[in-house]
Amino acid sequence: MPHIPLPEGVPGPRGPMLFRPETAEPMSEMAEVLMRGPSTLTLAERELIGMYVSAQNDCRYCQTIHGAVAAHHLGATEEQELLVQQIKCDPSTAPISPKLKALLKIAGHVQQGGKHVTAEDTVQAREQGATDLEIHDTVLIAANFCMMNRYVDGLATWTPDDPDFYRQRAANLAQHGYTGSASRS
Amino acid sequence: MPHIPLPEGVPGPRGPMLFRPETAEPMSEMAEVLMRGPSTLTLAERELIGMYVSAQNDCRYCQTIHGAVAAHHLGATEEQELLVQQIKCDPSTAPISPKLKALLKIAGHVQQGGKHVTAEDTVQAREQGATDLEIHDTVLIAANFCMMNRYVDGLATWTPDDPDFYRQRAANLAQHGYTGSASRS
Repeated sequence: MPHIPLPEGVPGPRGPMLFRPETAEPMSEMAEVLMRGPSTLTLAERELIGMYVSAQNDCRYCQTIHGAVAAHHLGATEEQELLVQQIKCDPSTAPISPKLKALLKIAGHVQQGGKHVTAEDTVQAREQGATDLEIHDTVLIAANFCMMNRYVDGLATWTPDDPDFYRQRAANLAQHGYTGSASRS
Repeated sequence: MPHIPLPEGVPGPRGPMLFRPETAEPMSEMAEVLMRGPSTLTLAERELIGMYVSAQNDCRYCQTIHGAVAAHHLGATEEQELLVQQIKCDPSTAPISPKLKALLKIAGHVQQGGKHVTAEDTVQAREQGATDLEIHDTVLIAANFCMMNRYVDGLATWTPDDPDFYRQRAANLAQHGYTGSASRS
């Protein structure tokens, strides 16, 4: 049961965002720019960073929906869903690019706390081809999910169990984004 | 030295926000609505919540500037600066309202992770007169500072040492807010 009265049957952050539309608007806009705006990071890479940080924060809703959005962008097959699980469990052994591995390492350090990110982390990411803007966006995506995960779990919002719910919602988010009427994850 | 090339002499989040104006805009808007928009929480109470969470996250820039903004709103005297330090060290023994103590307890739990917030925390806050909206905003302010602290330290932004720098910047932020040209803390 949520800690405050939220609209029923509305999952994750969407409940408190309906409860407080004034703050929901810039939150949605930030998600849209950061996760879907012009970038040399692919849509899937950005969702995987968000999924990974959410898993580290043990936020079931966010890790499931953003894992599903990532899988959707990657092709929406069972194989892609398995890849997402593999990345969640251990990015260092998953079949992904060395650049994404280095960025996920930075994201994991951001999750632990800003000071855990080292100059060496960013040197490694650059050696694998990451740009300054990609490093910036990785830090900000990870930080943003540290906010969203706490918003979702700090208010004890509704987390559905049905995997198909997440697949359908992921397809909807991938099509309409985070600011439309379908709105934020 | 920052982890990516940021404009020199620009403190805290303002450096990366100049580096990436597309994401800076909704971040600034969110801060303005949450920290300065219409609310039954005072400006000082909201800044104290942000200051406290930043201290728990060991973010020197954010705890210092938001402590200074809180002290400014409270009257900008040495006595108020000492009160802010007292709240930072131990809100439970500081001379503040029972409601603010209960909200700071919630904020501290959000900092540890969303699932640390308990139903009992919110019952206690309501018993001290907190509304559902105040509980919502406390959770979101705490979560937002968990993002900002990681943005500031995760990129190793510039943190000035001079206490007067923070006093002057605090007065500026209190007057012009988080979206003006003086912009985000």
